[in-house]
Amino acid sequence: MTPTVKSILSHYESDNPGTKANLARILMQGRLGGTGKLVILPVDQGFEHGPARSFAINPPAYDPHYHYQLAIDAGLSAYAAPLGPIEAGADTFAGQIPTILKVNSSNSWSSRVDQAVTGTVDDALRLGCSAIGFTIYPGSDDIFEQMEEIREMSAEAKAVGIATVIWSYPRGGEISKKGELALDVGAYAAHMAALLGAHIIKVKLPTDHIEQKDAVAAYKDGDWSTQAKRVAHVRQACFAGRRIVVFSGGAAKGSDAVYQDARDIRDGGGNGSIIGRNTFQRPRDEALALLDKIVRIYKNEE
Amino acid sequence: MTPTVKSILSHYESDNPGTKANLARILMQGRLGGTGKLVILPVDQGFEHGPARSFAINPPAYDPHYHYQLAIDAGLSAYAAPLGPIEAGADTFAGQIPTILKVNSSNSWSSRVDQAVTGTVDDALRLGCSAIGFTIYPGSDDIFEQMEEIREMSAEAKAVGIATVIWSYPRGGEISKKGELALDVGAYAAHMAALLGAHIIKVKLPTDHIEQKDAVAAYKDGDWSTQAKRVAHVRQACFAGRRIVVFSGGAAKGSDAVYQDARDIRDGGGNGSIIGRNTFQRPRDEALALLDKIVRIYKNEE
Amino acid sequence: MTPTVKSILSHYESDNPGTKANLARILMQGRLGGTGKLVILPVDQGFEHGPARSFAINPPAYDPHYHYQLAIDAGLSAYAAPLGPIEAGADTFAGQIPTILKVNSSNSWSSRVDQAVTGTVDDALRLGCSAIGFTIYPGSDDIFEQMEEIREMSAEAKAVGIATVIWSYPRGGEISKKGELALDVGAYAAHMAALLGAHIIKVKLPTDHIEQKDAVAAYKDGDWSTQAKRVAHVRQACFAGRRIVVFSGGAAKGSDAVYQDARDIRDGGGNGSIIGRNTFQRPRDEALALLDKIVRIYKNEE
Amino acid sequence: MTPTVKSILSHYESDNPGTKANLARILMQGRLGGTGKLVILPVDQGFEHGPARSFAINPPAYDPHYHYQLAIDAGLSAYAAPLGPIEAGADTFAGQIPTILKVNSSNSWSSRVDQAVTGTVDDALRLGCSAIGFTIYPGSDDIFEQMEEIREMSAEAKAVGIATVIWSYPRGGEISKKGELALDVGAYAAHMAALLGAHIIKVKLPTDHIEQKDAVAAYKDGDWSTQAKRVAHVRQACFAGRRIVVFSGGAAKGSDAVYQDARDIRDGGGNGSIIGRNTFQRPRDEALALLDKIVRIYKNEE
Amino acid sequence: MTPTVKSILSHYESDNPGTKANLARILMQGRLGGTGKLVILPVDQGFEHGPARSFAINPPAYDPHYHYQLAIDAGLSAYAAPLGPIEAGADTFAGQIPTILKVNSSNSWSSRVDQAVTGTVDDALRLGCSAIGFTIYPGSDDIFEQMEEIREMSAEAKAVGIATVIWSYPRGGEISKKGELALDVGAYAAHMAALLGAHIIKVKLPTDHIEQKDAVAAYKDGDWSTQAKRVAHVRQACFAGRRIVVFSGGAAKGSDAVYQDARDIRDGGGNGSIIGRNTFQRPRDEALALLDKIVRIYKNEE
Repeated sequence: MTPTVKSILSHYESDNPGTKANLARILMQGRLGGTGKLVILPVDQGFEHGPARSFAINPPAYDPHYHYQLAIDAGLSAYAAPLGPIEAGADTFAGQIPTILKVNSSNSWSSRVDQAVTGTVDDALRLGCSAIGFTIYPGSDDIFEQMEEIREMSAEAKAVGIATVIWSYPRGGEISKKGELALDVGAYAAHMAALLGAHIIKVKLPTDHIEQKDAVAAYKDGDWSTQAKRVAHVRQACFAGRRIVVFSGGAAKGSDAVYQDARDIRDGGGNGSIIGRNTFQRPRDEALALLDKIVRIYKNEE
Repeated sequence: MTPTVKSILSHYESDNPGTKANLARILMQGRLGGTGKLVILPVDQGFEHGPARSFAINPPAYDPHYHYQLAIDAGLSAYAAPLGPIEAGADTFAGQIPTILKVNSSNSWSSRVDQAVTGTVDDALRLGCSAIGFTIYPGSDDIFEQMEEIREMSAEAKAVGIATVIWSYPRGGEISKKGELALDVGAYAAHMAALLGAHIIKVKLPTDHIEQKDAVAAYKDGDWSTQAKRVAHVRQACFAGRRIVVFSGGAAKGSDAVYQDARDIRDGGGNGSIIGRNTFQRPRDEALALLDKIVRIYKNEE
Repeated sequence: MTPTVKSILSHYESDNPGTKANLARILMQGRLGGTGKLVILPVDQGFEHGPARSFAINPPAYDPHYHYQLAIDAGLSAYAAPLGPIEAGADTFAGQIPTILKVNSSNSWSSRVDQAVTGTVDDALRLGCSAIGFTIYPGSDDIFEQMEEIREMSAEAKAVGIATVIWSYPRGGEISKKGELALDVGAYAAHMAALLGAHIIKVKLPTDHIEQKDAVAAYKDGDWSTQAKRVAHVRQACFAGRRIVVFSGGAAKGSDAVYQDARDIRDGGGNGSIIGRNTFQRPRDEALALLDKIVRIYKNEE
Repeated sequence: MTPTVKSILSHYESDNPGTKANLARILMQGRLGGTGKLVILPVDQGFEHGPARSFAINPPAYDPHYHYQLAIDAGLSAYAAPLGPIEAGADTFAGQIPTILKVNSSNSWSSRVDQAVTGTVDDALRLGCSAIGFTIYPGSDDIFEQMEEIREMSAEAKAVGIATVIWSYPRGGEISKKGELALDVGAYAAHMAALLGAHIIKVKLPTDHIEQKDAVAAYKDGDWSTQAKRVAHVRQACFAGRRIVVFSGGAAKGSDAVYQDARDIRDGGGNGSIIGRNTFQRPRDEALALLDKIVRIYKNEE
Repeated sequence: MTPTVKSILSHYESDNPGTKANLARILMQGRLGGTGKLVILPVDQGFEHGPARSFAINPPAYDPHYHYQLAIDAGLSAYAAPLGPIEAGADTFAGQIPTILKVNSSNSWSSRVDQAVTGTVDDALRLGCSAIGFTIYPGSDDIFEQMEEIREMSAEAKAVGIATVIWSYPRGGEISKKGELALDVGAYAAHMAALLGAHIIKVKLPTDHIEQKDAVAAYKDGDWSTQAKRVAHVRQACFAGRRIVVFSGGAAKGSDAVYQDARDIRDGGGNGSIIGRNTFQRPRDEALALLDKIVRIYKNEE
């Protein structure tokens, strides 16, 4: 165990050793093990976008084993997915990579900005998962119910040594489409996840837009011109770095943009990437090459 | 036990032996036992359409024993029905054919696209059922609640060795009537059932219509001109064949259409048919003849 | 233990010794220990206004340890915050200052005048908190549900020796913006908290406006010209002083206004201040100087 | 909070902040607050010896308030007693001194070397106690049941932030009367309490007798000639000082012997005294004088 | 994950992936990771023999951290201990080595051939343990109760993904002292652990004595002249190698005897050693050298 990881774990001061051991497993896994940096492979697009939009571009990805193997071969930190795919590979890959059970899920056809709870802490235990993952939509009409769901589930998880990852995606209500990626909105969303007791916070990389009129004054003297500076602000909103924060890059895009994101996350003091479509929607060889470069960026080798 | 069945069972890698034994019972039952193919007789039209629309055309079918006996005599794989009919024959036919307790049900008069939970895992145990069956309506306003119901029930079922069959019928919300049978929609619906942890997935045979604008790109390079190819895509959406998928044919229709469906399911790699009205709404002799031919199709004898 | 504190505790005559011990801890803590006066540091603006609006003006305040330390160094009575920040410092500062777990929380984006329950009595126990804090919005459409939530939670808390603090903020429904601070409304809100069984009541300092037509007659003969007299009336509404009542000052403002508020609270017989933004949005030195003067005011030294 | 206390608390690394806060309260209480030393007043002789043998010599001690007040006035660290006496003073003295609820008790007439469980963790919570106290009799026929009782109770206590004190008194079976105070036996008894998960361990000051034949070899090269050295060995048996260990002096005896015990405990690195009969069986003035001197000894002032 | 480990895991065919993941963690840990061989450090002699007999010969071993560090530095597979010592280091060493919570314990003074249950599955979860360890004494008057205890606990453990290790020590009743180490008795004890559903079985290395008259015939044609052959027979009794079996060497002895034991275990097809007193009762440097050689023996390098 490295001093960096020990220092990160020390911030989770109210957690029992079981929960810390699962955080440690994620932080010590793979090629970034011990660096304090993480790359997580999330595959929940099947629920969100359906199978064809997710996997038709790279048909081997229809098989849940594909993703387990990709995460392992790329030396990543953890693999996150809903119940079905975790069940489909949990025995074959038992003990090979920490898994995060995504316990709520939305879908393209829902008219509500909400998700169904589709997994439980008991599922996480029987499947050997290190954490549960839960999405909240700050801004939505159902945000209070979502908060109450994750309060219940994370309390249950903390008692049995399972860590909690919160995906915090501002959406709904008066938040504009542009505002969903605004700096003030992203920092606020990250902060709410921290306030709710998340161990690991997942947000999107923010733009330099400021959405909330009431927040303009607080941001006006800052320099938000670079993505790294914006990452640093989001990290600040995560209890000044006392909570792990990882960033997603959104829709699939060019490799260079992905690398630049990783550099900015690194330079801004973020803990890493959670990167799904940009990997499994590429051919496996290209995905491994891309992940290799991202890993090297986080290791300061690029 | 045949290598084919062993291979299918091996995909349910997180399940306990009790659940696998019940899956094995279904897979080893009747004339298709050991082939990896299934024909299931479902009789839940009483709830859906009322008794006369269901049974007047073939009055012996008012008697629940009729269906048990039909399924047994035709050498089918399992018989699925709601609580009442299962209770009405569970003693007489105990041990003769695997049963699937349909644990939620709709009816013609409901204004909501939803179902009531009308059976339990405890019922399934006391009645000796091998599985529970549950319908979800992706697209409906109540889909999240439906998902949370089946999460509870299938977790309970898995713990006591009962398998889960999900009927996944897209309906409601912005899905058009034509869209309910669209290929993209059907594959998505099947995929959601898999993501929810179903052991057996039941969907409708899809048309070549693509409903979702966002999905057009993912489908535009594929050849969906034949039903077999569409079946193959739905199978792909069921974890690349790691989950059993069976197809229904919808409303009663001509025998030749039914046979063609079976051939397409077989050729597309589907696991079989779940066929209700096309059997019990025919005189028993005709039904047995029709089922005999379907069985022979799945055995590659036709 | 001073006679003043003994007298205050004697008013909580149905409470078990565990709850009284926690009230005593708050009343005996810090520089005001034993005086019957309290100054509480609340930091829940992260939920309410987001991180930047809360902390950008004084960046060290992004770190939850900052607030614990500020409350301790200023000799305050207690520190109140949501789950995440309490978890982030509960071990480091265990036993150093009584904490109040804010168990429900709103946010800027919610369209409802409501809060999510984001903490539990079990959390309070495992984190060593002396009290739970809960906000109600008398006037809102959801007030009955809020009342039922705090009924459940405070009953549970009282059974295990945890005290209850109710933040009572009139808002929503037919209450005008001006009316939220009206004397009759504030007294009514404080009284409802007392009626609900709160041990400590937190309201805003009221203006001399009378909002409710039906209440005009009741107030017409009174002299509400000074803030101290209005405080005395609110205290009267808190069971004639049998319940502890503390006042918040609202948005950050000039020091002199803050001091005058404290003098008025003191002179009107209020129990003290709950003062957040006016402290942590100042540089630490200034905040300590301001809190020092407030403490001295409550000790009748200023 | 002093570095000494922070260091002691850091050894309880698996405990939640609630439990640590209660340990901190004991360690920060009274005249020894912050020194890492403790003096606890235990009054459970009523159960053990009956009221007259306990209190006739100093009749005011029949009143439970007497003991609370004695512990407070002497500036002690905590007061320990069974359910009845704690209930009889818990309100009057709420928040004035940490209390330890003795949750099992024996009596003079029992023919078994055992105790009845006479209090619960729920009692401790409603009475505002910082810890539960439990006696085990290693050597007795019922030791396994006693261990299982404290396992249940301390698990429950740890979950709600209550500390556990184990009184470990070797007795019964093949242990001779002389052996009950033997060094090897006392160290073993202390060690068993530590193994069971006690936060604070209470044993008797050992003699230099070695009781167990099998242990002679392990002790033969040590120098056990002074009581301080024997204390140091018992401390070693408490996880090399990672667990707090306090010593009782047994039956009432002369003041000088009591002072010498305290000096030896201090010099041997023990954490303090738990001293009952030697205080409450003296007139109050004498008891206060004696306790004052003991406190000064632990503060290295004598 | 190596083919050897995959093969071992495949034998636990009714276990959920959570339990397999914990077995995998043990099998992939340290210098023997992936070989299918294990060396476990057990430190429960404090309960069994008291602290001085256990640790006086090597005083640093009084500190629970000593053993965690020894197991880690020697590259062992797991560390096993009762509740107190696991609690004392679970946070410092979280995630660094799999731990086995010894959930029942005896002591030198007990007149019964039994143990107290001193830990729980909930403890194992909150402390991040990979397995529970439980001792049975086949032959004792209390064996049925012991069997029922481990039935309850291992069922609970298996449901939440915790593995079960059974220490099976024939003792009591009509078994002679010599008979405790007899081949037939040892094989029988190992078999009973397997029959009870243990994942890992711990027994003593057997002599060539045959204790039971009724068993003489069954053994008379075998060649039991070498320890390796006797190990092979015990392995046979553990479901022909379908369950992991590790051997203890008993009291501290010379290094050469320890090495020979390891070679015999290896050559007989045993899975490894559980070796306590022979390591922690030596100076740390000697212990590390001894463990290094044992590891190399299991790696076929010696």
